[in-house]
Amino acid sequence: MQQPSIPKGTRDFSPQEIIKRNYIFNTIRHQFELFGFMPIETPSMENLSTLLGKYGEEGDKLLFKILNSGDFLSEVPANQMNTANAHLLSSMICDKGLRYDLTVPFARYVVMHRNEITFPFRRYQIQSVWRADKPQKGRYREFFQCDADIIGSNSLLNEMELLQVIDLVFSKLNIKVKIKINNRKILAGIAEMIGEGDKITDITVAIDKIEKIGIHKVNEELISRGISTNAVARLQPVLELNGSNPQKIHTLETVLQSIEIGIKGVEEMKLILDYTSSLPLSSSIELDLRLARGLNYYTGAIIEVKASDVEIGSICGGGRYDNLTGIFGLEGVSGVGISFGADRIYDVLSQLNIFPETAGKGIKVMFVNFGIEEEKLALTLAQELRNDNINCIVYPEQAKIKKQFAYADNLNIPYVVIIGEEELKSESITLKNMVSGEQQNIPAKDLLKSLQ
Amino acid sequence: MQQPSIPKGTRDFSPQEIIKRNYIFNTIRHQFELFGFMPIETPSMENLSTLLGKYGEEGDKLLFKILNSGDFLSEVPANQMNTANAHLLSSMICDKGLRYDLTVPFARYVVMHRNEITFPFRRYQIQSVWRADKPQKGRYREFFQCDADIIGSNSLLNEMELLQVIDLVFSKLNIKVKIKINNRKILAGIAEMIGEGDKITDITVAIDKIEKIGIHKVNEELISRGISTNAVARLQPVLELNGSNPQKIHTLETVLQSIEIGIKGVEEMKLILDYTSSLPLSSSIELDLRLARGLNYYTGAIIEVKASDVEIGSICGGGRYDNLTGIFGLEGVSGVGISFGADRIYDVLSQLNIFPETAGKGIKVMFVNFGIEEEKLALTLAQELRNDNINCIVYPEQAKIKKQFAYADNLNIPYVVIIGEEELKSESITLKNMVSGEQQNIPAKDLLKSLQ
Repeated sequence: MQQPSIPKGTRDFSPQEIIKRNYIFNTIRHQFELFGFMPIETPSMENLSTLLGKYGEEGDKLLFKILNSGDFLSEVPANQMNTANAHLLSSMICDKGLRYDLTVPFARYVVMHRNEITFPFRRYQIQSVWRADKPQKGRYREFFQCDADIIGSNSLLNEMELLQVIDLVFSKLNIKVKIKINNRKILAGIAEMIGEGDKITDITVAIDKIEKIGIHKVNEELISRGISTNAVARLQPVLELNGSNPQKIHTLETVLQSIEIGIKGVEEMKLILDYTSSLPLSSSIELDLRLARGLNYYTGAIIEVKASDVEIGSICGGGRYDNLTGIFGLEGVSGVGISFGADRIYDVLSQLNIFPETAGKGIKVMFVNFGIEEEKLALTLAQELRNDNINCIVYPEQAKIKKQFAYADNLNIPYVVIIGEEELKSESITLKNMVSGEQQNIPAKDLLKSLQ
Repeated sequence: MQQPSIPKGTRDFSPQEIIKRNYIFNTIRHQFELFGFMPIETPSMENLSTLLGKYGEEGDKLLFKILNSGDFLSEVPANQMNTANAHLLSSMICDKGLRYDLTVPFARYVVMHRNEITFPFRRYQIQSVWRADKPQKGRYREFFQCDADIIGSNSLLNEMELLQVIDLVFSKLNIKVKIKINNRKILAGIAEMIGEGDKITDITVAIDKIEKIGIHKVNEELISRGISTNAVARLQPVLELNGSNPQKIHTLETVLQSIEIGIKGVEEMKLILDYTSSLPLSSSIELDLRLARGLNYYTGAIIEVKASDVEIGSICGGGRYDNLTGIFGLEGVSGVGISFGADRIYDVLSQLNIFPETAGKGIKVMFVNFGIEEEKLALTLAQELRNDNINCIVYPEQAKIKKQFAYADNLNIPYVVIIGEEELKSESITLKNMVSGEQQNIPAKDLLKSLQ
């Protein structure tokens, strides 16, 4: 018989892993709820018509498609079978696909349920997503996203609150982070200012490379991409931008002064930074023009979070999108959201070795099993402990005592209760602390008290 | 543009539904953990080789298959494309399928991880499963199962503890239930006793029909199925079985006295009932020979739970299986488990209208937004409340007060805090109870105290 296996890029989660993962989810969920976000869930499968075309050509290829049930070939014209290519055939035999992210299903949800929703709608969603990406270290084909969005409000208070949520989540997780913030309108303003409004991407890529290759090489590259020397010259103050947030803003205000969209972006940035400066945040927030994630998608603030003490990609990101639900026919609804990458956060906590010991509430007590009469007392006492929310087990068989203790050891159970013939007679129990090795004989009725 | 929709048989869950569903999950999870079960999770996708052939021919048809990524046709010989039928082609273009239940993935998990697992292994698993069933009222294509199993122990203490978990879960949920219990060995013994060892299914179906069609018709049916008149005559005491559990056991002991497997089943039943009678259970446990669920699968105890006050199928079930992991090459490991049907439990709680009001911790406080200065005080106070675990929001825009109050009303937020010019000057706030309509002006610093 073949050894069983699981599909590549997927994972089994052991109890220890689940407990650690839940510690992350619970920390995030708790902050989401404190800020008034309400949970929703959407189906794992969406109609392919909902998903296709929303993630670019590359994204379409990474969708997991589900074969139609029953005689799926009945929809395929006979003459197609010979000539069909994979792309064409898949559209005839698959109507559904697995969720690729939580944002598009959320937009679909908002449009479908718009009459039941009170806007501004603050929702959070913690669910798996699936991508047929090439699996590699830290990249899986099934992984969790933890999203919070506010939809139906233009107020920058929302951006500020999301920054606050980010700060609180990582502060509770004891992860030191740098929060970077940018604004799509500033990038658009810069492009417009140098007369290259359609070259936002090239300009952002260039800004991003300064640290690596230096300003001279960047200038060369910009020219080779067809940006005029004049434009490159005007871009210099932006490429040289540094200093504190207020200094950067001052420069941008000067540079962009006649560019309406740019000034709008700077104003938004100022207000967000002003809001956050009045809060006691643990993390630093840095205006960073290099931030361009989801450029085709975000229309205002762009947010990205990196761990300070671990080399890893971004562990949280987000931004404002002005027309997400437009793709499903509901125009003019602005949203802003963030998404935590639970898997990378898991890796950061593992590498820093800072998962709290109490992350999981494991089994606290095991009752050794010596026989049917002893068992009865054990069962009664076990239920008393459970009534007091103490997780415990009665070893299910009258195995050798050595085996029973080894079991408790393997499962890291801190207390073992021994009930033998002697104990039965005297209505007492022996309580052994598995960490210190100490044991004491106490009246059976005092067990709960001793464990509290 | 087409209205977006979701695949048939799937569901969106609104915040209210999620909160109610989590109340069920949390109640079940809490009891699982109190009894020392540890969480695991398995991937949504399994290799089709893991799933196929495990659920019978009907089950195979209900598996959702996932189209291989990329050029999935490259594996299909050209001459197959003309002649291929759906069944054959699907085996060439799909390697993976969505999980159909939690039991087979669990068996696969145990075999793959057997060297890391300490047996007896007590695990629970709360995850979705997918079945391409015809959708109908109360039957979905994506739904949740909540399973707990103990694997690697033959002790009947396990059966007893699972019955206790069932009793506690439904008692905490305030659902009155009847727990029915049977034993596959008793059914096998009865078949052997009447000399029709291969007719267990026919006999069970017959027993099941007595209430509906009466004993005479049942006897006729048995004979029409080829069971001898002599055998049917010997079956009469079983068909007429009634009374209390001890009375039924007494009859079975007499009837099955020379049948080894039957007596073994009766012994097991006696011990389980004896165990449970020493516990303070809220539910009644009834020996019911009609119980035959999963007959091809269970080898000992069979358990089924029905709600007493709502007409609905079983809301929990389980039993012992002696060789589950055998299908993956690990022989001789006995297991026993139960599975709660969260969707039906949801329906029962809805019909009885007994979801607790406190099932969800919604937003408790909304701060009305009157302007930038007022907002700053609101934000500071909001964070004070959040530090004390109170969920609250600041209305994100300076909208008309009527609109802001309507928002709080719609979201059932019980308290609204008003900070206007007056309040700012006097460092006070006005706290309005949205249920009673009362409002009071208090010092800003006393807000937290007033809400505690």
